[in-house]
Amino acid sequence: MHNYIYVQHQVILDLINTREFQRLRRIKQLGTASLIFHGAEHSRFTHSLGVYEVTRQICDSFQRNYPTKTPGDGGWDDHERLTALCAALLHDIGHGPYSHTFEHIFHTDHEAITAEILTSPETEVNQILRRVSPTFPQEVASVIQKTYPNPQVVQMISSQIDADRMDYLLRDAYFTGTEYGTFDLTRILRVMRPYKDGIAFTMNGMHAVEDYIVSRFQMYQQVYFHPVSRSMEVILDHLLGRANELYQAGKSDESFVPHLLLPFFNHQFDLEDYLNLDDGVLTTYFTHWRQSPDEILADLAHRFLDRKPLKSAIFDDTTQAQLPHLRDMIRSVGFNTDYYTATDNSYDLPYDDAYDPKVTHPLTQIELQEPDGSLRELSTVSDLVNAIRGKFTGDQRFFFPKEMLNPGDDTPEIFQPIFDEFGSCIRNGQLINQKDAD
Amino acid sequence: MHNYIYVQHQVILDLINTREFQRLRRIKQLGTASLIFHGAEHSRFTHSLGVYEVTRQICDSFQRNYPTKTPGDGGWDDHERLTALCAALLHDIGHGPYSHTFEHIFHTDHEAITAEILTSPETEVNQILRRVSPTFPQEVASVIQKTYPNPQVVQMISSQIDADRMDYLLRDAYFTGTEYGTFDLTRILRVMRPYKDGIAFTMNGMHAVEDYIVSRFQMYQQVYFHPVSRSMEVILDHLLGRANELYQAGKSDESFVPHLLLPFFNHQFDLEDYLNLDDGVLTTYFTHWRQSPDEILADLAHRFLDRKPLKSAIFDDTTQAQLPHLRDMIRSVGFNTDYYTATDNSYDLPYDDAYDPKVTHPLTQIELQEPDGSLRELSTVSDLVNAIRGKFTGDQRFFFPKEMLNPGDDTPEIFQPIFDEFGSCIRNGQLINQKDAD
Amino acid sequence: MHNYIYVQHQVILDLINTREFQRLRRIKQLGTASLIFHGAEHSRFTHSLGVYEVTRQICDSFQRNYPTKTPGDGGWDDHERLTALCAALLHDIGHGPYSHTFEHIFHTDHEAITAEILTSPETEVNQILRRVSPTFPQEVASVIQKTYPNPQVVQMISSQIDADRMDYLLRDAYFTGTEYGTFDLTRILRVMRPYKDGIAFTMNGMHAVEDYIVSRFQMYQQVYFHPVSRSMEVILDHLLGRANELYQAGKSDESFVPHLLLPFFNHQFDLEDYLNLDDGVLTTYFTHWRQSPDEILADLAHRFLDRKPLKSAIFDDTTQAQLPHLRDMIRSVGFNTDYYTATDNSYDLPYDDAYDPKVTHPLTQIELQEPDGSLRELSTVSDLVNAIRGKFTGDQRFFFPKEMLNPGDDTPEIFQPIFDEFGSCIRNGQLINQKDAD
Amino acid sequence: MHNYIYVQHQVILDLINTREFQRLRRIKQLGTASLIFHGAEHSRFTHSLGVYEVTRQICDSFQRNYPTKTPGDGGWDDHERLTALCAALLHDIGHGPYSHTFEHIFHTDHEAITAEILTSPETEVNQILRRVSPTFPQEVASVIQKTYPNPQVVQMISSQIDADRMDYLLRDAYFTGTEYGTFDLTRILRVMRPYKDGIAFTMNGMHAVEDYIVSRFQMYQQVYFHPVSRSMEVILDHLLGRANELYQAGKSDESFVPHLLLPFFNHQFDLEDYLNLDDGVLTTYFTHWRQSPDEILADLAHRFLDRKPLKSAIFDDTTQAQLPHLRDMIRSVGFNTDYYTATDNSYDLPYDDAYDPKVTHPLTQIELQEPDGSLRELSTVSDLVNAIRGKFTGDQRFFFPKEMLNPGDDTPEIFQPIFDEFGSCIRNGQLINQKDAD
Repeated sequence: MHNYIYVQHQVILDLINTREFQRLRRIKQLGTASLIFHGAEHSRFTHSLGVYEVTRQICDSFQRNYPTKTPGDGGWDDHERLTALCAALLHDIGHGPYSHTFEHIFHTDHEAITAEILTSPETEVNQILRRVSPTFPQEVASVIQKTYPNPQVVQMISSQIDADRMDYLLRDAYFTGTEYGTFDLTRILRVMRPYKDGIAFTMNGMHAVEDYIVSRFQMYQQVYFHPVSRSMEVILDHLLGRANELYQAGKSDESFVPHLLLPFFNHQFDLEDYLNLDDGVLTTYFTHWRQSPDEILADLAHRFLDRKPLKSAIFDDTTQAQLPHLRDMIRSVGFNTDYYTATDNSYDLPYDDAYDPKVTHPLTQIELQEPDGSLRELSTVSDLVNAIRGKFTGDQRFFFPKEMLNPGDDTPEIFQPIFDEFGSCIRNGQLINQKDAD
Repeated sequence: MHNYIYVQHQVILDLINTREFQRLRRIKQLGTASLIFHGAEHSRFTHSLGVYEVTRQICDSFQRNYPTKTPGDGGWDDHERLTALCAALLHDIGHGPYSHTFEHIFHTDHEAITAEILTSPETEVNQILRRVSPTFPQEVASVIQKTYPNPQVVQMISSQIDADRMDYLLRDAYFTGTEYGTFDLTRILRVMRPYKDGIAFTMNGMHAVEDYIVSRFQMYQQVYFHPVSRSMEVILDHLLGRANELYQAGKSDESFVPHLLLPFFNHQFDLEDYLNLDDGVLTTYFTHWRQSPDEILADLAHRFLDRKPLKSAIFDDTTQAQLPHLRDMIRSVGFNTDYYTATDNSYDLPYDDAYDPKVTHPLTQIELQEPDGSLRELSTVSDLVNAIRGKFTGDQRFFFPKEMLNPGDDTPEIFQPIFDEFGSCIRNGQLINQKDAD
Repeated sequence: MHNYIYVQHQVILDLINTREFQRLRRIKQLGTASLIFHGAEHSRFTHSLGVYEVTRQICDSFQRNYPTKTPGDGGWDDHERLTALCAALLHDIGHGPYSHTFEHIFHTDHEAITAEILTSPETEVNQILRRVSPTFPQEVASVIQKTYPNPQVVQMISSQIDADRMDYLLRDAYFTGTEYGTFDLTRILRVMRPYKDGIAFTMNGMHAVEDYIVSRFQMYQQVYFHPVSRSMEVILDHLLGRANELYQAGKSDESFVPHLLLPFFNHQFDLEDYLNLDDGVLTTYFTHWRQSPDEILADLAHRFLDRKPLKSAIFDDTTQAQLPHLRDMIRSVGFNTDYYTATDNSYDLPYDDAYDPKVTHPLTQIELQEPDGSLRELSTVSDLVNAIRGKFTGDQRFFFPKEMLNPGDDTPEIFQPIFDEFGSCIRNGQLINQKDAD
Repeated sequence: MHNYIYVQHQVILDLINTREFQRLRRIKQLGTASLIFHGAEHSRFTHSLGVYEVTRQICDSFQRNYPTKTPGDGGWDDHERLTALCAALLHDIGHGPYSHTFEHIFHTDHEAITAEILTSPETEVNQILRRVSPTFPQEVASVIQKTYPNPQVVQMISSQIDADRMDYLLRDAYFTGTEYGTFDLTRILRVMRPYKDGIAFTMNGMHAVEDYIVSRFQMYQQVYFHPVSRSMEVILDHLLGRANELYQAGKSDESFVPHLLLPFFNHQFDLEDYLNLDDGVLTTYFTHWRQSPDEILADLAHRFLDRKPLKSAIFDDTTQAQLPHLRDMIRSVGFNTDYYTATDNSYDLPYDDAYDPKVTHPLTQIELQEPDGSLRELSTVSDLVNAIRGKFTGDQRFFFPKEMLNPGDDTPEIFQPIFDEFGSCIRNGQLINQKDAD
């Protein structure tokens, strides 16, 4: 990716070597998407190093080309460098395994945990940050929380075009093989510049920025909202949910205790408990659960570990009314529809607020700077960006067992009419209107 | 680029080794743009090999996945392969040096010459094509002229997404370093498929096609319409025009005769004369002209050879009225405005009919094929493509000597007010309205 | 890596979707080396797909260019394709987590297990292979065991330049960022050709083969024998060894049972037990052990999980005599030298028999074929290869806690002379002769 | 290649825009090799920019990591930067078209001309250099001539691993598609360091340096000594030689005067004459000569322009005795052997003194620096480099018309026995001993 990671500060090296940071090696960046894009096995560890490296390059460029000379002149103050670098490196340190789903089931919050890891005196991370100054841990945390006073530092880590997004878009594109998710990082870094209220881009960099926006758009459509990945997420959600319900109902397997998950089942976990989790801990318990006497738990564990995704079909307002009937058919051939069906909207996934219809005022806009210093907002200049803006509509999908479309050889004959009817409700991957079907 | 060029037919090898084809080594693909993008030194020879190679890969894919079984089934008939490959290899064989400008001054026509090279019995190319069959030269020519009966073969070479465009966009992006001009050729080849009326793309390839369209858009904006390249084209046009005028007026240099250009000055050239031309022939004469007693000819030759582009500023309907005054100022400091100024519109450049406002019905649309076989036109499915469609507006530029903005140290003081006024008419690269300027 | 994996057979698709194969997603290809080369997070799953893909490309090339016409003519018989592809895909299916070390401690054998997975009727892999024919599982196993009658198929999977080595060298080079471990796969595939006794290379491919040999040499020196990776392997070995000893001594933690490892502690495991293992299972137990009351177990688990490698120094015959004294010093500051020191020779690592001094007759040599059909062994033609041959000497290293060179701030003062003496025994990463030291 | 060229000094920008430097755009870097490796159409212009860029990166690295603190401490003095950059940019400015052959025929000397361009007051280059200081042109020239007092600056431009070699090896590998000619520039730049007597490499960079040496070795064997390229060089040499002889004999074509070559035919050329030359000038005259009444001149011009290489066969001391007989046969079918045969040894080509058997003491060795500061010469540490050293033997080839092996259809029957005998003298591309042939 970035060829080399240059580490210039001992503090950075020491942070990398902490237990909390090393743990990120064992958490995949893309979660269930790594089951679809088979090369995408990279971890949050490498992504975090990448964000650090991109930030370092931005700082170098700012310091070389736009150093501040008098306070308030909008230039870059290189005393901010270490704060920016630490925030970059640590911005994801609170992530756990399969965060989105885990948080859904167990109500954890990776952003709060990130802050806690930085500021809680018992972590190795905190001990190292404190060596810089007593207030340093809180300063770094405030950058991640976007409350830090210097908007340049904040926007380096969190804005429409920040080191985090640039690294993950490029990295995910690279490892998923999505060539059209790439953009020209070197050129973007060259056209970035600090100004009084944050970070802008020189006008001659408009096309580089445009290309970044298009790439991001394509990554969302192609990777982050991939229907098979979402279906694996559905399975994971139902699997953890089932285990939790069995535990709450006192029905879990006596002979085997998922020690490391108990604090979460019991809603009484501390930071130590959280830091013991990683992808391997979850899959180890799934390996146990695959042999559970509870058939649904065992089957969902099998489907997740052995990658048996659900199928899905797109529906919209006009076809939504058919969902109850589809569920009836699924139930009638023997599936518990609570665990084997789901609907989701790509908007329910965590994603860029640029695409989020619920966010009316995205935090930052992208500003281009003319040669005479005046600023123009990107979408007022770029036909392309203006075109994309507001056009993203997402899709709603109904998930169901693939057996509905490909019943096995040992399926009872009497179910065949149900399968036939079910199949006739879907064409070209979409639910069809019944009158169209006639 | 394409890693390797696989040549499977002796005919292809023999065509490559003809005098007419080897000559393409001495003609740069990008003409004046190679003076701006310094790595873009590639020739029409390598581009032509590339188009051959892309076509070969399309044929391989079609033959492997979609061979025809019964006539009219829309499958690929591999008997067409050699015709397609020859048309691909030879589609540009009629190009001369700096074609666009050369044609403007000397009224040559590279498309007519391509046909002539293929069908005229004295060329080596024709002799080799005739070995296949007596009608083969004309068949290959008809593919290039889009009159060949099989639309799949025609669209392979000439359509919105053809082997020619795919090769030159990728190749030009690669050598100009315009990373955002790249797209995923392998994926596009995988989703291309023949059908009854030509070539379509499977629906799951929509994003790959989308990315191609965006890349093409970006290459036009960034490379093909680059203002400095256009300014070098202006100089070249004025230089050849000046030489022609001097010759017609009987004022050309007696001691030196541009033998190889005389047939063109005299409007009496034959194919042999045309085939003697290449980039080096023109620049050799420019080297002579640089020492001409005619000061304008000598200076324009110097500006072209030594790369001294004109400056330019964008104008529009509201600022066009100022051009006469600008020309007056330029004239008053001593420049002949016939040779040292110009206006052009990016639409005057030869370009893709997808962007050409003068073409109301582009030859082919891009068709996507659903799993059930039905076709949908791309812009009805893709938000991105729909957004770009019709949004391209080009720009109009006024070209003038850079001395107007940066007068040399030896400029007479009395001209300074003129330069000052001239400079004040332009802001952020655009002519400004006089009232805005106040 | 290989851009796309083309799957042409339903059997291959079904094999990929088996439980046994999906499990390879959870086993890193490079084991402890992934802790040193942070981008090298790829799994045996992606490697196995890669070996399949390279094999497919070899088969395509052989079938296109060298199909057999009469039996025994040395050409390629495409009926062998499916056998070759299955063997390629499954050659590593018996691997477990951190195989080398795991096998050392628990005496498992991944090659025997591979054969068992293929031929044991209860596996999903076997059930799918049997659909081809009753003898097919055994045939595929025999290719991997090198007893299959067709030497072309065997050498495709196991020889000096086989699909396995080509994929892992390229893949490991790519993900470790070791640019000089790359070679030109496309060119090698073009110069490979079948002959009566196996696979040879055309003489004009000599430089491509040469480059492969040099790359392999460099990967061994740079990656596979990397001293920090070896030191993490030492820690892993001591950690599993300690757990095993505690268990055998009845001293393991009552409150926590490592269910999935018990069959291995008890030397009574079946295939099911083995297939439940993956990297995550081991690290989950390490997470438990990190909190063990046994200090050595807890500390080694911490060192492994949190990546605290041992340091090492090279020694040779002349400096080996100092090791007991070094161990004494280490012991005297409080380390149990059984668990905190080790020696190893890079030859003890599993590696290519081309470099193995214990293998006197490597299975296959690399044969080059002259235009007239005669064969010449590579090292008789290539100066480079001849130069490397036999030159590889490996290195012997002594591993010790890094605290010996960087004692912490809280180290008792009285130990300082020991640390000083210890440090003086090592210069430029090597043990030095005592007289040199004076 | 290098992604971006960063120009930090106005002087550099002005040098690039000189007439002398722009002329390098019209001279191909690889000369006749560009006729064999069809993508290798790059010019000396882009190479020169590349050498500048590599030098800039070295200076940046040295200044960041190893700035001098006290005189003589072996650190880098950044006051040398501009001198180094100018020498890098201009080191090839004296090159003409097809230098090696042109110099052979016309006794020009590109090194002397380089010095003249830098120091002669009428060049634009000199005028710009003088703006820095009156002695600056001579200082820059002395770097190129290796007489500059600071060995770090000299070795940056001329040594075993200098900016010139690194750029051309990488660039030529890239454009010829010779993947195994690449090495890891970024890593080499990281391990380079200045010391008192020049430039050394840190010991941990040994493998990067090793890989560079192997890549260089492979580029010489694969590209620079390519037999077809050498055969085109032979044709060029004979073509220019023939034209010269005809001119000296007063037999050149009256109707056409090669104005720009006359000063060279007459051995009276000045700098201006030399600077008018480029590849296009030569090929323009070749286009004329292709129609010359002198058959040999016309045919050689045709063979060069239309790329009809000679064939060649390797010979050695044992087979050299057959050359006169081979020439007799060639003569007896009608070829003038002075113009249609040649022998050459790859050692006659201009190449790296590391491979030159005539150079006993190469200018610089490659020094590796241990952590304690001591130096070790590379070949004492690297098995690979030691292996290559002195092993390079080159090859001797006999060149002849390909008609000898593939006589055309219109060849008189009576010559057939001669062709048969000629063909029987060559096997696997080598002359064979007559007794072996029996």
